[in-house]
Amino acid sequence: MLIQRLDPAKLLEAYDIKVQPVYPVPGVVEPPFGAVWAVVEPGGRTKHHNHQEGETFFVMRGEGLMRVGDEVFPVRPGDVVFQKPFNSHIIENTSATEDLVFISVYWEDTAMWAGRRETAPADLARPKRTLVTAAPPTPNGDLHLGHLSGPYLAGDIHARYLRLRGVDASFGFGTDDNQSYVKTNGDRLGMGPQEAADYLAGEIKATLETAGIELALFSRPNASPTHVPLVQAFFKRLYDEGKLVEKEAPAPFCETCDRYLYEAWVRGGCPHCGEMTGGNSCEGCGRPNNCSDLAEPACTGCGNPATLRLFKRLFFPLSQYEKQLRELYLKVGMNTSLRSLCEQILAAGVPDICVTHVAEWGIPVPVAGYEGQIIWVWCEMAPRYLSYAHELNLTRGLSEDWTSYWKSDEADVVQCFGFDNGFFYGMLVPALLLAFDPAVKLPSAFVMNEFYHLDGKKFSTSRRHAIWGREMIGDGPGKVPADAVRFFLAWDNPEVESTSFSLDEFHATVERELVRGWGGWLAELGAKLERERGGEVPYTGDWTEDHRRFYQRLEELTAQAATAYEARTFSPQLAARTLSELARAARRFGKAEETWRRVGGRSEERRTGLALELLAAKQLAVLAAPLCPELSARLWQELGYETPLAKHRWEDRPTWVPGGQKLRGLGAEPYFPGLSVRAGADQATVLASAAAGG
Amino acid sequence: MLIQRLDPAKLLEAYDIKVQPVYPVPGVVEPPFGAVWAVVEPGGRTKHHNHQEGETFFVMRGEGLMRVGDEVFPVRPGDVVFQKPFNSHIIENTSATEDLVFISVYWEDTAMWAGRRETAPADLARPKRTLVTAAPPTPNGDLHLGHLSGPYLAGDIHARYLRLRGVDASFGFGTDDNQSYVKTNGDRLGMGPQEAADYLAGEIKATLETAGIELALFSRPNASPTHVPLVQAFFKRLYDEGKLVEKEAPAPFCETCDRYLYEAWVRGGCPHCGEMTGGNSCEGCGRPNNCSDLAEPACTGCGNPATLRLFKRLFFPLSQYEKQLRELYLKVGMNTSLRSLCEQILAAGVPDICVTHVAEWGIPVPVAGYEGQIIWVWCEMAPRYLSYAHELNLTRGLSEDWTSYWKSDEADVVQCFGFDNGFFYGMLVPALLLAFDPAVKLPSAFVMNEFYHLDGKKFSTSRRHAIWGREMIGDGPGKVPADAVRFFLAWDNPEVESTSFSLDEFHATVERELVRGWGGWLAELGAKLERERGGEVPYTGDWTEDHRRFYQRLEELTAQAATAYEARTFSPQLAARTLSELARAARRFGKAEETWRRVGGRSEERRTGLALELLAAKQLAVLAAPLCPELSARLWQELGYETPLAKHRWEDRPTWVPGGQKLRGLGAEPYFPGLSVRAGADQATVLASAAAGG
Repeated sequence: MLIQRLDPAKLLEAYDIKVQPVYPVPGVVEPPFGAVWAVVEPGGRTKHHNHQEGETFFVMRGEGLMRVGDEVFPVRPGDVVFQKPFNSHIIENTSATEDLVFISVYWEDTAMWAGRRETAPADLARPKRTLVTAAPPTPNGDLHLGHLSGPYLAGDIHARYLRLRGVDASFGFGTDDNQSYVKTNGDRLGMGPQEAADYLAGEIKATLETAGIELALFSRPNASPTHVPLVQAFFKRLYDEGKLVEKEAPAPFCETCDRYLYEAWVRGGCPHCGEMTGGNSCEGCGRPNNCSDLAEPACTGCGNPATLRLFKRLFFPLSQYEKQLRELYLKVGMNTSLRSLCEQILAAGVPDICVTHVAEWGIPVPVAGYEGQIIWVWCEMAPRYLSYAHELNLTRGLSEDWTSYWKSDEADVVQCFGFDNGFFYGMLVPALLLAFDPAVKLPSAFVMNEFYHLDGKKFSTSRRHAIWGREMIGDGPGKVPADAVRFFLAWDNPEVESTSFSLDEFHATVERELVRGWGGWLAELGAKLERERGGEVPYTGDWTEDHRRFYQRLEELTAQAATAYEARTFSPQLAARTLSELARAARRFGKAEETWRRVGGRSEERRTGLALELLAAKQLAVLAAPLCPELSARLWQELGYETPLAKHRWEDRPTWVPGGQKLRGLGAEPYFPGLSVRAGADQATVLASAAAGG
Repeated sequence: MLIQRLDPAKLLEAYDIKVQPVYPVPGVVEPPFGAVWAVVEPGGRTKHHNHQEGETFFVMRGEGLMRVGDEVFPVRPGDVVFQKPFNSHIIENTSATEDLVFISVYWEDTAMWAGRRETAPADLARPKRTLVTAAPPTPNGDLHLGHLSGPYLAGDIHARYLRLRGVDASFGFGTDDNQSYVKTNGDRLGMGPQEAADYLAGEIKATLETAGIELALFSRPNASPTHVPLVQAFFKRLYDEGKLVEKEAPAPFCETCDRYLYEAWVRGGCPHCGEMTGGNSCEGCGRPNNCSDLAEPACTGCGNPATLRLFKRLFFPLSQYEKQLRELYLKVGMNTSLRSLCEQILAAGVPDICVTHVAEWGIPVPVAGYEGQIIWVWCEMAPRYLSYAHELNLTRGLSEDWTSYWKSDEADVVQCFGFDNGFFYGMLVPALLLAFDPAVKLPSAFVMNEFYHLDGKKFSTSRRHAIWGREMIGDGPGKVPADAVRFFLAWDNPEVESTSFSLDEFHATVERELVRGWGGWLAELGAKLERERGGEVPYTGDWTEDHRRFYQRLEELTAQAATAYEARTFSPQLAARTLSELARAARRFGKAEETWRRVGGRSEERRTGLALELLAAKQLAVLAAPLCPELSARLWQELGYETPLAKHRWEDRPTWVPGGQKLRGLGAEPYFPGLSVRAGADQATVLASAAAGG
């Protein structure tokens, strides 16, 4: 006989409560299930969790609440509660004094998983409107491939996809003119900050256009009709409602330059990861600092060590919003990297965030007693997104203000940004918005990328280790089409880990996948249709098993591309690979189908085969439209459509290219002229010497 | 008003009957359906067909039978018959004198397609035993990469897959010793035909073993205890039952050499495609010839033009089996290329096939009056497969004869071969088997490949344009592991069209997909498990949405690999790409999951992530086992399993690597040592000079 007793000494931490293993007892009792005692202390609760096992709670002592999905119900001693696999649940002790004790018995039975499927794109209920945004670029330099690979491409792809789905989706952002880095950069250039920002915003805009990034709004904050008033009203309301607290706290100060140091003006060791960083936020680990906690802080102006002085400023007590943020994290789409970053910051204890700084450049604090201080640009960031919505409506001649996106059940907001902004978008901005108006509807998804490198090293403007967007993309000699660069930045995307651009890989991949893969197939298809059908789309006829399977494969690849384009499961890498697999599968199918030409009496099968191959070409045009819009538009036209691709809707079950429709030179001209291996080698030389500073 | 009347002058051929279009009338009446009059002449019938439209027949006149699937029912005037989309059907006129006339109305409604899915591998009912065979190599030379890429690799992959599925599957074949080419080759080498065959069969066997092709049987026909007796009994029975007919017909003859010419002894222009070919069958178009119909036939011995002489020989009247062959084609797995080839030959009118020839080398005709004639080797081919089954049973110590595979509901036969053998396996062999015994159960699937080339040109022994199997594969310096070659031959497989081997592509692909792709991921995974868990497999904990989606992705990729390995949908290209996508997706998932290390309190998520990534490694081992058996066996062992992979079964819903299991050096050593880009370049030089004859 083996008797086990609940023993406080044997309790372990798990799922935010305490458990004591009961079964299995290795080598002694190994039943087809596991069991633990579980103790929830007064006021405590398990984390919100789920697992693949079925589970039963036998409640022994105490009282509590269980939450499963949106349902909540009380539990008391004697209750036996069954949980299906993958049900997300919480159990909470509602007593202030007594432990809640239960036995959990769990077992894995994959038969119980039957029918379990994560929601597929085809089954999503979509709002009418979506505002897709990207973190605003700082106008202190033009954009290089590293920038382009991130939120700008992501937001453009996602918004284009949503429009194909029939959503009124707009991609918009602006420049981050009130950044301290704009001021320091202007100083370097010998220009005023706004003048420098205006100049570089023009450069940035030209690069975005060259890269095929379609913007419904490119906002210049200080020229915007809505931005500054909204920011000041926003700040004022937080202040008036007591959502900000005044604190006298130390800040780094440069005795040499006689300057308060923050953000761009200060560098030091990150208090969390030790890496050298600027003020307020660390690129290395993504965590915030308050400048005074940097190790050996120094002034970026003169290089001298900073001292600490006391300043009276306003702080935002972020920790008060932890519960609301956790609610957000249960619903919002966010990848594992962002989720773990936010959990890490919450676990470490959330600091109060200083939201005013002593500086000349920025929007003045609209509160008496803080003269000489500006609203920190990351506090400006929350109302900025409300302003985007309002300004977008103005641009489109609509009378609605920001609430049409931020407080409407008919709208969603999706925010795209890089890892170094994860804390701000994942925690600070949503908390500020909730502080401003608890009825604000927070974003439905965050799309976060990691850093993109060049030949294994960080892109660096100062070391000239960069390939600028307009240096590579364009029509001229030695330039390549935007679609080829967009495709490769997707194929190689730093979506969950840092990846690195290499010109050799670029040329090898584009040659293999696009020039030979897509282009080779479409050229053959066009020639075949011209030869056999005089360039006219055939009507379907008799179907073989291979026909039916190929149609099914088109449905599967369509679903896979949709998954790759959805914000919750966003993966440019998967999108690029799905498109290439579509082209490969279609080419293979088409080659096999050509053999029907041997048999005159089987023209019905031949027609179906050709119609299916053209359907694959149509699906390539549609599925590639978010990623390679120029190629898609051209392919769509070559397939003989009169109405533009933009009027077409994504089809989960694709419909035929209409029988009798006339093709227009399908695949007759190369889609990427000049992008052969040879041309690549020439261009590689040019760009490599550019990257080397030559 | 528009009146249309059934008008014999307007009838068109379609679906093997006559139709007259009714709707739409372009520009006049364009209803949301199409309509035709259809006329089936006395004794005629539509081809067996199906289409995506729903369809209704209104029977106007005559009488007939409809067949839908296995159901048959009579139709008469006034009947209105509805067909669901994709229902395969036939309508037949049963009257000897009167037309069967009906109106067909059809319309496309994709809602009616709901739930339509081709049978998935997971849902197949499988027989207990399967005999997988490949066309026997002619022992007139060793095997090069072109040979290996075809039926030998295909059969090995498929049989290994079936064994993983729990089927008692054996892959077996032998050499084709009684071929005329064995005799001509022996003459060249100055050896007797059997002596030459024995020598080269040894070379072939050694190459197959080096390439990891696992054979349950490698039969030498003239030494086999079952082959010659079975062939003679088979032939005798056909003759005795009147299934063969004697004909006096012209055959090419060489006056110089005083020799009857056939097969290896004659060359001339193919009567169908015009390409220069040997006797009896054309490599170019795959169609049979009777040697006397070759254009300008010449003797291969002396090169002189042949004359025609009359010979009395036995013929097999293949056309009598057309109906049974068509029944076979409704059920058997065969790709489009083979299907269209057989339809082409049927459409052209099936010739009688000469099955005895005047020759010394071969199995003598066991019938009086045909002394000096041998059984043609392609007539030997049908009983050969019965003999394989019997010999396999003997080898395994079983008492059953060939019927345990060829007449049992518990067994299947799958035959693999190249395009040049398509006519034989797709038509002649099944017809001969049916002639021999109508109760023979024909193969469940044919797996046919096209030709593999080397650098864009045909492999050629005589021109030394070849890479021999054992020249490339092995352990020594400049050699590469069998798995790398198998993977690449799958990746680049001539499965539906001719493809071409290039050493550069081989090295680039293996480096990218295997060395960096699979190997890079597994090395990182092993190091991570060692570092974080002391090399022990974690138990699962809390699940995130990303975890659930990744598990689902593993299920999807598992299903996709199964589809690629099934005989009906056999695609080594898809198999190789599915495995690489599994490795890529797992690496990406694992990288994202690493970020949970930031948060101590989230060890439950971290555990689930690691368990899932190890599950992906297990799935790679299982899913790759048919293609890369050595790598799979090693990976399986590194994952800590004590029982060999061969004891494991394919799981459509994969189960965990057991928690607590100890890993054994997972990924610690490279899986393909020496296969870096550098080593590849060295080896490329060696092999390129070999292929160039240096």
